[in-house]
Amino acid sequence: MAKFVYAFSEGNKDMKDLLGGKGANLAEMTNIGLPVPPGFTITTQACNTYYDKDQQLWPELKEEIFSHLKALEEKTGKNYGGENPLLVSVRSGSKFSMPGMMDTVLNLGMNDATIPVLIKNSGNPRFVLDAYRRFIQMFGDVVKGVPKANFDAFFDKIKEEKGYEFDTQLSADDLEIIVQGFKAIYKEGVGSEFPQDPKVQLLESVEAVFSSWDNNRARIYRREHNISHKLGTGVNIQSMVFGNMGDDCGTGVAFTRDPATGEAKLFGEFLINAQGEDVVAGIRTPMQIEEMNRINDHLYPDFVHICDTLEHHYKDMQDIEFTIENGTLYILQTRTGKRTAHAALKIAIELVEAGFIDKKEALLRIEPEQLDQLLHPTFDKKALREAVVIAKGLNASPGAASGQIFFDANDAVKAAEEGLKPILVRKETSPEDLEGMIKAAGILTAKGGRTSHAAVVARGMGKCCVAGCEAINVDESKKQFTHKGKVYKEGDFISLDGSTGYVYEGVVGTTEATLDEDFETLMGWADEVARLKVRSNADTPQDAAQAIRFGAKGIGLTRTEHMFFQEHRISAVREMIVAQNVENRVKALDKILPYQQSDFVGIFEVMKGFPVTIRLLDPPLHEFLPQKDSEIMALAKELDLSFEDLKDRITALHEINPMLGHRGCRLAISYPEIAAMQTRAIILAAIEVIKKGIPVLPEIMVPLVGHKAELDYVEAIVRPIAKKLMEEHGVEVPYAFGTMIEVPRGAITAGDIAQTAEFFSFGTNDLTQMTYGFSRDDAAGFINEYLDKGIFTVDPFVSIDPIGVGLLMDMAAKQGRETRSDIHLGICGEHGGDPSSIKFCHSIGLDYVSCSPYRVPIARLAAAHAALEE
Amino acid sequence: MAKFVYAFSEGNKDMKDLLGGKGANLAEMTNIGLPVPPGFTITTQACNTYYDKDQQLWPELKEEIFSHLKALEEKTGKNYGGENPLLVSVRSGSKFSMPGMMDTVLNLGMNDATIPVLIKNSGNPRFVLDAYRRFIQMFGDVVKGVPKANFDAFFDKIKEEKGYEFDTQLSADDLEIIVQGFKAIYKEGVGSEFPQDPKVQLLESVEAVFSSWDNNRARIYRREHNISHKLGTGVNIQSMVFGNMGDDCGTGVAFTRDPATGEAKLFGEFLINAQGEDVVAGIRTPMQIEEMNRINDHLYPDFVHICDTLEHHYKDMQDIEFTIENGTLYILQTRTGKRTAHAALKIAIELVEAGFIDKKEALLRIEPEQLDQLLHPTFDKKALREAVVIAKGLNASPGAASGQIFFDANDAVKAAEEGLKPILVRKETSPEDLEGMIKAAGILTAKGGRTSHAAVVARGMGKCCVAGCEAINVDESKKQFTHKGKVYKEGDFISLDGSTGYVYEGVVGTTEATLDEDFETLMGWADEVARLKVRSNADTPQDAAQAIRFGAKGIGLTRTEHMFFQEHRISAVREMIVAQNVENRVKALDKILPYQQSDFVGIFEVMKGFPVTIRLLDPPLHEFLPQKDSEIMALAKELDLSFEDLKDRITALHEINPMLGHRGCRLAISYPEIAAMQTRAIILAAIEVIKKGIPVLPEIMVPLVGHKAELDYVEAIVRPIAKKLMEEHGVEVPYAFGTMIEVPRGAITAGDIAQTAEFFSFGTNDLTQMTYGFSRDDAAGFINEYLDKGIFTVDPFVSIDPIGVGLLMDMAAKQGRETRSDIHLGICGEHGGDPSSIKFCHSIGLDYVSCSPYRVPIARLAAAHAALEE
Repeated sequence: MAKFVYAFSEGNKDMKDLLGGKGANLAEMTNIGLPVPPGFTITTQACNTYYDKDQQLWPELKEEIFSHLKALEEKTGKNYGGENPLLVSVRSGSKFSMPGMMDTVLNLGMNDATIPVLIKNSGNPRFVLDAYRRFIQMFGDVVKGVPKANFDAFFDKIKEEKGYEFDTQLSADDLEIIVQGFKAIYKEGVGSEFPQDPKVQLLESVEAVFSSWDNNRARIYRREHNISHKLGTGVNIQSMVFGNMGDDCGTGVAFTRDPATGEAKLFGEFLINAQGEDVVAGIRTPMQIEEMNRINDHLYPDFVHICDTLEHHYKDMQDIEFTIENGTLYILQTRTGKRTAHAALKIAIELVEAGFIDKKEALLRIEPEQLDQLLHPTFDKKALREAVVIAKGLNASPGAASGQIFFDANDAVKAAEEGLKPILVRKETSPEDLEGMIKAAGILTAKGGRTSHAAVVARGMGKCCVAGCEAINVDESKKQFTHKGKVYKEGDFISLDGSTGYVYEGVVGTTEATLDEDFETLMGWADEVARLKVRSNADTPQDAAQAIRFGAKGIGLTRTEHMFFQEHRISAVREMIVAQNVENRVKALDKILPYQQSDFVGIFEVMKGFPVTIRLLDPPLHEFLPQKDSEIMALAKELDLSFEDLKDRITALHEINPMLGHRGCRLAISYPEIAAMQTRAIILAAIEVIKKGIPVLPEIMVPLVGHKAELDYVEAIVRPIAKKLMEEHGVEVPYAFGTMIEVPRGAITAGDIAQTAEFFSFGTNDLTQMTYGFSRDDAAGFINEYLDKGIFTVDPFVSIDPIGVGLLMDMAAKQGRETRSDIHLGICGEHGGDPSSIKFCHSIGLDYVSCSPYRVPIARLAAAHAALEE
Repeated sequence: MAKFVYAFSEGNKDMKDLLGGKGANLAEMTNIGLPVPPGFTITTQACNTYYDKDQQLWPELKEEIFSHLKALEEKTGKNYGGENPLLVSVRSGSKFSMPGMMDTVLNLGMNDATIPVLIKNSGNPRFVLDAYRRFIQMFGDVVKGVPKANFDAFFDKIKEEKGYEFDTQLSADDLEIIVQGFKAIYKEGVGSEFPQDPKVQLLESVEAVFSSWDNNRARIYRREHNISHKLGTGVNIQSMVFGNMGDDCGTGVAFTRDPATGEAKLFGEFLINAQGEDVVAGIRTPMQIEEMNRINDHLYPDFVHICDTLEHHYKDMQDIEFTIENGTLYILQTRTGKRTAHAALKIAIELVEAGFIDKKEALLRIEPEQLDQLLHPTFDKKALREAVVIAKGLNASPGAASGQIFFDANDAVKAAEEGLKPILVRKETSPEDLEGMIKAAGILTAKGGRTSHAAVVARGMGKCCVAGCEAINVDESKKQFTHKGKVYKEGDFISLDGSTGYVYEGVVGTTEATLDEDFETLMGWADEVARLKVRSNADTPQDAAQAIRFGAKGIGLTRTEHMFFQEHRISAVREMIVAQNVENRVKALDKILPYQQSDFVGIFEVMKGFPVTIRLLDPPLHEFLPQKDSEIMALAKELDLSFEDLKDRITALHEINPMLGHRGCRLAISYPEIAAMQTRAIILAAIEVIKKGIPVLPEIMVPLVGHKAELDYVEAIVRPIAKKLMEEHGVEVPYAFGTMIEVPRGAITAGDIAQTAEFFSFGTNDLTQMTYGFSRDDAAGFINEYLDKGIFTVDPFVSIDPIGVGLLMDMAAKQGRETRSDIHLGICGEHGGDPSSIKFCHSIGLDYVSCSPYRVPIARLAAAHAALEE
């Protein structure tokens, strides 16, 4: 028979899966001899079984609980519901901390029969009656769903009647009235009397905790923190200790180091004669931890000793909850303390210096995502508390920004030139908005997901972006957006938090990002152990320089099309697109060539011989053409075409599903002259830079290949041109020719494709879109629904789906290596900066990941983690 | 060393891959003792090697050719370019017949030195000089690219100068002048003298034949006939015989049976004193084959004997070319004769009756695609010859139709009600056009591929459709289309050939389709051997009845959404879509329920217990809403909404890539009440029909599943409702619950999905779209380019790509069977009616294919082929 209940003495800290975090640590502390009030834990497995049994406790479980309760009675010498009354608490505790998400009930075991005994034993009727009314309220609220407000209203009424200002003014008699009143409220709400049987109190509380695992706020929390809905929660039943029985009592929390700065110094708060909830509620101002000694002078040294013991034992900074009951110290919880990124780095490094942990352990202590805090400005915490939220979108690109809203990219550019800080607000952005995005302090869109144009471009620039904020209604023509009837006009101030997705009214104060020595130390350690190299996606010399500063070892993706949108170029690009024949197209391409070449020269110079993967033109051509009649008219004039002809051409380029349309290598196949021009630009740029004595390593990458014959066709354009140019200039350019693997068929037939490709770069954005059949532009809505309904535990555009998309990647990597043992394998999709995806990439043996510059440090650390966790 | 040249005596009929069809049959006839002029064949492999070597003949090949030439000289006792001059022909011949696509050169070996000898030997200077001038012209044209017209002009000039009407009036002296003239034209065109060296003549002709394999018209022909560009052509070098040396000479072609009717009677044509090209040119009226006896009286009996021999030997109707030189009969070619579908059936059945072949062989003799001719009306051949082509689109749904053009579905409906035959012409059709499509005699669209809405619906109805006719410019608002400046207005007559894609001006006469006894006989044989069952896609009782008539054994796909568009229903559907909350949505769904239920009743009654697979709602909801402001205004009024609100809702539903958007099971997950209503309609309909004593077997199919959790979610909606209804009505409905496999991830994780799904139906349209990343709405243009450029040999939307898409299918079928050994597997994509795809489905062990009703006979035969070819 399965064992569903463990005494604290039976568990240990490694049993978090089964006992939850709280239960495992209570067990661990019990076993190393710390003063933990005794108790036992019902396992997470019991919780899952509870759900399997249609949310019913079953006889064997009840029996096991009562048998442990009996042991607890023996241990404490008290009696649950009896002579020397044992009171217990019932608390949730899952594998991962979910603060405040689930339920707690305190003071179980109180009833009309035990109250007189407790009063007699404690000699403190006020305390006992206060505990009893709290219990009735908590049980009513948490277990039976009677609104807390009903109880509060009655409580306040009594206080008012009596003319009291503070709770402490209530006498035992007053509290007796409140207890009776609460019982009546309970009965009215529930339809039956408050249960006097302590076993009923216990079982119903256990059920309530189990049920709270599946409540709405817990589900949302798990979704946001990528915690599986299937873990279940443990339930901890522990004998009560009270910090509010008098002035020799108290309660508090402490961190063994400063969680904000990491300084090695006990940091905590403490209240005399109080319960835990009083500390959290923040009504009374707590004392510094050292003042424990006010109660008695060995308490603080004892506590310091316990803190040291715990930090030594857990080898990490601990977050400790304690209670002092009549001068005796009890530890109620310890867990690894949450900390800022700055503190995390400092603590990890100091623990290494102290010899507690080694460098590897130190690396594993830092969550890669945490580094993001160090790389972007953040809102000031205090300012944030007072800020008015307008709406919440997707946290598309981290950072914080305040400024004035503009609805047109050109307006934003103008505003920036006038010295304003524009926030560009659009339904969704398109490549035409690029200039405005560059100049904007932040970007807000109403449509599009984390891999929408706005998100991808903003992350590339390390610029704050909130995308897919569907609650706002953007009217670009009226230059305003509305939210619940309120209108926000051009020039109004708003603030964006790209790390959380919140949009605020007005200006919220920010704190700037800084990189310190600790950061460099840790990154150095990471690079020592990582097997995966980290490259960056970069389209400009500026991006490339930023990537180098963050430690990138190459560029994994240069999107040539972003360059097409810059002034002077776009008209040649448009001329090229509307060309009716090859001659005219070549003429227009000849105008673009010098621009492209100089872009590549700039990037090559920055990268100094690190590999630079350049993707040939990828997006559908219609993206480069105007859509509004007025703009078409202007362009027609410029190109000396009739409005009708140009409009026809634009209409002909329209596609129903552009994602699956005429783009990628399909463009090179229809218009070989485009690929020819781009090849010329790359090779000529390389020759130019090599002649300056700087090494260059370009990798020419063909997008959207699904069939070897496609790649062969493009190779037959690229290689002869490269060869001819090298011969003409007498310079050898060591370039590679390869492809993206981003179409399922490309992955399936990668063995064939590797006959031609010298490298593969997985385009996991598109591969995920096509493998799932999800348009990343359209799927945000229903993916959220999937997450809410537990169909997905993680958005596949955030982390690589290892089962489906991952299988195709693994298949392609294996086939690729089989055909060409030295094939170079990387990833340049957005997943390249996601730690769990990086782990996956490591596991299938890729050579590198490439991500936006601001994700490079995160990826370096994640790559180290992947190697260490192997 | 590879052998690249085979004497006719070294080959046989089974060596078509290596020798080409013509070469293999010449070898076969040589070996069975028929009078074939001796010669040899250069292999297709030599052709491919020629391309590998940058289109150069190489020394070893030349040596091998000359050594066979020497053997030929010995055999004939003649001398190539010498005393007793040997003349040869050089003809192409690939594995599959490509009539007129490649090059031929005759009379090689003639030069200024051999002419006098030939004149002396033949005693016929006119003939010899005529042959020489023909040789110069042919060599100049075919090998050197001198325009044929240049030669013809000179020839006509001489005739005119002499005042001749007929070529036969030219004297030997005249011909001498023409020979000199032709040489001058040759020199002018080529830049060098006409080559006198017969070896040069030979090698250059061989090169020309090899090169002609890759000429444009050959590539296009291969693309249209799905012939691989990689096969290469053989070259046949054969000693010349002449049918034009006098009145004891002649040439002709014959079929051993009538190719139009299949009647067992020699059928042929014959010209005295003529060359093959004279027969083809059709200038002189040929004689009946029996009249051979005019030359001498054993000729016809001899020829009949040879025909019998060949038909016995090849066990099929033969198409024979022959020449009579000075009273001696020579066979120059035999091949299996092309025939009409009617003739093919008759011949196959008669050959079985005659004991020549067995039923299996008879089945294999009929190309499944050929049956299509029997199922649809076709244009009268003679009428077609005189018809004026407007343009060519895609042959989207076979059949022929003439009628008056209308540009709006409602106009077409009205016209049909007035007794006119409307041809519906649209840019592209949408589900709203359904009524008009039903009433139209034929459908023409300017956009969309073979799997566009117009094509799919038309095929379902067996209606003629030409889709994606991009050459025409449709202006629906002006009710006209234009082509090269010519305007076609509403009411103008046009004719469509859905089997070829041609659009004609005016009315072209048609021949109606008929199904005869031979057809039923052959279908019966097919069903005996086929392992795959054939179902049909059908959305209405009418379609279902048609499917049954064509022998379908169930319905593999009922698209519930097509029913949504009918009058009275669409407004409830729209009300459902714009509902702001679940209550209103359920209210609207309640209105739709009885309609759906009665549709299903109708289908179940027709299908009498055959399985009926019903797909839950699949298309994105915006497809059901109007797009034009005027229509939105009307709908807003009807639904009592403000125009703005409705417009906002429609805009919110707009998707950038609807193909990858909110559709399929994603709808059921967002709006479980839709799936609930559909389940109710299916189960209630089944109960109703079962109560009438008719057996029913519904299969509820969930579309677009990529993850087991999606299917589980829908199952949790469907099963409890079905159970409850069955209990309420006390009727057991034997239904199955399954899914489409049409998303790559669904195929990859099919083992998981099969835990829930009792059947899989492969949706190969979508699976192909996503596996390739090709939107079928947008890809027609570049797929044609891929076919032209040899990147694809076949359109993956026409035949399943066995390497990529097929691998996913195979993977899914295997995984599915592993999880659930009795899982039922089928295909309901458009590929279900394509013979080569059916073969693939057979090879991976599917249980059935489902296709549009008019493809059912084709699929039945293809299924038989698949089993026989195993």
